[in-house]
Amino acid sequence: MKYLDQINAPEDVQRLDADALQKLCCEIRETLLETVSQTGGHLASNLGVVELTVALHKVFRSPQDKIIFDVGHQVYTHKLLTGRRDRFSTLRQEGGVSGFSRPNESEHDVFYSGHSGTALSSAYGVVRGNELNDDKSYTVAVVGDGSFTNGLVYEALNNAGRTDCRLIVILNDNEMSISRNVGSLARYLAVIRSKPEYVRFKAGAEAVLNHIPLIGKPMARLLMRIKTRIKNDLYDSNLFEDMGFRYMGPVDGHNIGQLTDALETAKLVKKPVLLHVHTVKGKGCEYAEQHPALYHGISKFDMYSGEPLTGGTNFSEQFGKYMCEAALHDRTLCAVTAAMALGTGLRGFEERYPRRFFDVGIAEEHAVTFASGLSKTGMKPVVALYSTFLQRAYDQILHDGALQGQKLVLAIDRAGFVGEDGETHQGLYDAAFLASIPQITVYSPATYHELRQDMYNALYVDAGLVAVRYPRGSEPEFPADFKLSGGSFDLYGPEDAPTAVVTYGRVSAYAMQAAAGLPVRVVKLGRIKPVDPAAVEAVLRCGAVYFFEEGVRSGGVGEAFALQLLERGFAGKYSLTAVPDCFVAQASVDAQLRRYGLDTESIRKKITTEEAHHAG
Amino acid sequence: MKYLDQINAPEDVQRLDADALQKLCCEIRETLLETVSQTGGHLASNLGVVELTVALHKVFRSPQDKIIFDVGHQVYTHKLLTGRRDRFSTLRQEGGVSGFSRPNESEHDVFYSGHSGTALSSAYGVVRGNELNDDKSYTVAVVGDGSFTNGLVYEALNNAGRTDCRLIVILNDNEMSISRNVGSLARYLAVIRSKPEYVRFKAGAEAVLNHIPLIGKPMARLLMRIKTRIKNDLYDSNLFEDMGFRYMGPVDGHNIGQLTDALETAKLVKKPVLLHVHTVKGKGCEYAEQHPALYHGISKFDMYSGEPLTGGTNFSEQFGKYMCEAALHDRTLCAVTAAMALGTGLRGFEERYPRRFFDVGIAEEHAVTFASGLSKTGMKPVVALYSTFLQRAYDQILHDGALQGQKLVLAIDRAGFVGEDGETHQGLYDAAFLASIPQITVYSPATYHELRQDMYNALYVDAGLVAVRYPRGSEPEFPADFKLSGGSFDLYGPEDAPTAVVTYGRVSAYAMQAAAGLPVRVVKLGRIKPVDPAAVEAVLRCGAVYFFEEGVRSGGVGEAFALQLLERGFAGKYSLTAVPDCFVAQASVDAQLRRYGLDTESIRKKITTEEAHHAG
Repeated sequence: MKYLDQINAPEDVQRLDADALQKLCCEIRETLLETVSQTGGHLASNLGVVELTVALHKVFRSPQDKIIFDVGHQVYTHKLLTGRRDRFSTLRQEGGVSGFSRPNESEHDVFYSGHSGTALSSAYGVVRGNELNDDKSYTVAVVGDGSFTNGLVYEALNNAGRTDCRLIVILNDNEMSISRNVGSLARYLAVIRSKPEYVRFKAGAEAVLNHIPLIGKPMARLLMRIKTRIKNDLYDSNLFEDMGFRYMGPVDGHNIGQLTDALETAKLVKKPVLLHVHTVKGKGCEYAEQHPALYHGISKFDMYSGEPLTGGTNFSEQFGKYMCEAALHDRTLCAVTAAMALGTGLRGFEERYPRRFFDVGIAEEHAVTFASGLSKTGMKPVVALYSTFLQRAYDQILHDGALQGQKLVLAIDRAGFVGEDGETHQGLYDAAFLASIPQITVYSPATYHELRQDMYNALYVDAGLVAVRYPRGSEPEFPADFKLSGGSFDLYGPEDAPTAVVTYGRVSAYAMQAAAGLPVRVVKLGRIKPVDPAAVEAVLRCGAVYFFEEGVRSGGVGEAFALQLLERGFAGKYSLTAVPDCFVAQASVDAQLRRYGLDTESIRKKITTEEAHHAG
Repeated sequence: MKYLDQINAPEDVQRLDADALQKLCCEIRETLLETVSQTGGHLASNLGVVELTVALHKVFRSPQDKIIFDVGHQVYTHKLLTGRRDRFSTLRQEGGVSGFSRPNESEHDVFYSGHSGTALSSAYGVVRGNELNDDKSYTVAVVGDGSFTNGLVYEALNNAGRTDCRLIVILNDNEMSISRNVGSLARYLAVIRSKPEYVRFKAGAEAVLNHIPLIGKPMARLLMRIKTRIKNDLYDSNLFEDMGFRYMGPVDGHNIGQLTDALETAKLVKKPVLLHVHTVKGKGCEYAEQHPALYHGISKFDMYSGEPLTGGTNFSEQFGKYMCEAALHDRTLCAVTAAMALGTGLRGFEERYPRRFFDVGIAEEHAVTFASGLSKTGMKPVVALYSTFLQRAYDQILHDGALQGQKLVLAIDRAGFVGEDGETHQGLYDAAFLASIPQITVYSPATYHELRQDMYNALYVDAGLVAVRYPRGSEPEFPADFKLSGGSFDLYGPEDAPTAVVTYGRVSAYAMQAAAGLPVRVVKLGRIKPVDPAAVEAVLRCGAVYFFEEGVRSGGVGEAFALQLLERGFAGKYSLTAVPDCFVAQASVDAQLRRYGLDTESIRKKITTEEAHHAG
């Protein structure tokens, strides 16, 4: 019987001896590979933290002690050890186990977490709250080195440092964020790692010490503490020590003995501790170790060769292609991204135009403000981010983007439903929050051709700040007789139809399919802010207008359209189908579209039912 | 004739000798005191950077060289030296000189700037853009130590560090952000400052060296470099050196000779430099030096005694009072703010409940995520921020607030027009951007009594995330016969009126005054998200509905209301008066309300004119 099959709760980990823990780790790795190759997911990051997670559950008592995983895409092992082993094959499927930390799934998941850099802040909040409650349990934040490029982490370090609170921070240093880590801190960590004082426990001595019962562990801890102290003196003023943390490490993140000893030592410190753990992203899987960025977040793949099982082009790739072509003729075109060169399709641009390519780390706020600086010198910066991460730069878009009035383009990938990543990653908010930004122009292309046209407008026709938002995946299929006009909106269907459907983005393809053969005119908005008054005019005399929106209902385009209709005297029926006031859980994009009435069938049903009701 | 009267451009500063520069600084201080006591504004921060600003314009050639002031509330001296001396008495007045950096005012103001921590990011953008343009001019970012608690600064440090770019960062260390600086970095800076190696140029040696023409300056520079190098070796691994910057300093920020020498040295370094300048906030003005937080941003005051000329209570004070009273009975109530204890009225809370008061630095993102951690332990955290700064935490409100589903209250001060601070500080966006946050409840109280009621609901009645937003200043005057119902909206005026005015916040008082004697019913929304369907019902049969909103039109409450009306079959006239797609420049709050048609007179005029037109 496998060890993993006996783990139903963290206590079962605590019962295992060193040898068994080692074997458990192998079994976990096998399970990870098997499952992720079937379901897709975050492979490399999870392979890297197997031993660390086992050691954490060996040393701490979850859920009393709070183990808070940053980002949450390193929680697969944690899930396997905390009662979700049996359901783990449902990873990232509708109704299944989430790929991120989710409190509604288990008391061992402390926070919903999908964005980088939050763990330290929330952990520090837990620590101070525990103090007020006189609760002595431990709080551990597990944070990747990539997240250390994010400002939020620094704000928390600054706030927690030099206090006497018992916060334990694990710096999971795999030398990568999602792709190769950038910036000064990454190089600094490399320096620390390469120092000769790198802690390597002599295996023999450690083994002997561990076999002397009772006094073994404390002595090992004492040794560890002495070593740490010596090492700190050698390093003198360590950056983390300067920030007011007790620095420990680096320890080998794949040596459970070393990890548990270090964690036991950390428990004894009466001030904030930063334990630097060196892990290998993709550990134990040859192709993942060699191409960790590729296997960071991945779709289904062949678990032996590592070959992906899906293919074909998509909006990201098409965006990258456009950028490369445009950069050939325009020497002022620059690309800025936040640790998402691969995901946003900019790898080719990076290779061909390295001087004009800027990966600033997981630092979305800086990305926008930095781009504003570039723009000041006459450059045309395009900031490419996922919609969900762009949220982090709302203030910068307003204060350092729109207000400056300079040329700045936001290329917003994964706008709309994102599928399996679930609640924390939905791109359903950008159309709404960008609506409140003065003087911004927002496009929502539905085809590759339109994406190119909108990027051209954004760069060379419109003034100031422009956003181009496009969905995850590939372009939808439009009716053969539909042709893009090149204007700010398009019409499809009979001109004198009594009923209109208004929508934008990929849903417009579904709407046109749904309207086939019905007395319905489809208005496809290409530019969603400002909405063209002529698009409103086009439906003003219809008896009924149905708006379909792949985005939140509150504050979205369907609301703005309603206002325009109402102010211009529209007296017909209006109905807005959009995402209601809730968070959208994981499922395929198609399932999510269906769930919220935005697929072809639902749209057709909505129109025909309502119209029948109207007529009857 | 005064030296200041001869300064029409930075070149005029460059012509002055050391003695004259010293006298110039005295004259500038006098002008600052005279003007700010009349106009209100940021006093202490500007008194602290007089010599630094003079030295910057002595050494650099603006506007070719870019001097980028962070936040911008330290730019008064810069404005006096760059051609705005004559107009300086119009500081912060409508149509006058802005209190912040404004490119539309002068080519010497590089960016619109009012939020903390942006200068380093935008300066680094300028540096990299200049490189692409083969432009060798210098770029200097002047950043206060308070801003160094902000994550954006760190993201930029991390991105720029360890490159070979020529970025000069001035750390203006006055040991304060707006109020006393908090956090680990502040304590770290205190350690550096207190080291015995603190650079003090021996005045004699310097004078001699400076008087030897041609070789004098270079030799002084050499000396400086040697000293710096020695000092760095002594400090060994300085935090800023760890981040990949050449660290220089600390130098005396009130010694022009020392400053110009240090700046000349910085120009020679072929990598990013951080020059640590030690200044005294409020320098040269006794009361401002002693109470720098009080004289950070201030209304008109008596320039001799420092006594403020305005008084009376306001929403901030009332909020603080409520918090203190509630905390007496509720031991879980906590207050979190981001360097705004004074501004948000929380000083009293801080004094009475220090363990439950958390000032996290200028770190709005961390404030929200930290509060989410507190909440997890059963605390009831209230995060008090100005509306304009809350923008910075949009993602945290969504991801670490709403999604977690825990109790979290946002107390949003300065919601609506903010007056003299102008474009960068308007609180006109929160109603719109909060609309897109799922499951949030938003209140907009118009009186102190209502503020207390809404805070009570937020803490003890409503579930999850709740925002209470209130304006700058004091409560408006409502008609004597108006009584708050305690519900989610209020009605005023004849029940069967054919016309309705819908609004929220302080504008509701103006609307009621405007409606006096007219056949108009006023609906005052207390809760603006979600809007109570009964409030929509109340106007559904009106012939005309006028919505007045002290906030942006696009994405705001007036749009949401329009949607609800339209979906429920409203067929009357609808008109929304709100802030259009623009940025709102400085003026008094009253003038801003008038400018956008939101004062009593404009509202009355709007209704009567339109109704007459309608009838005719």
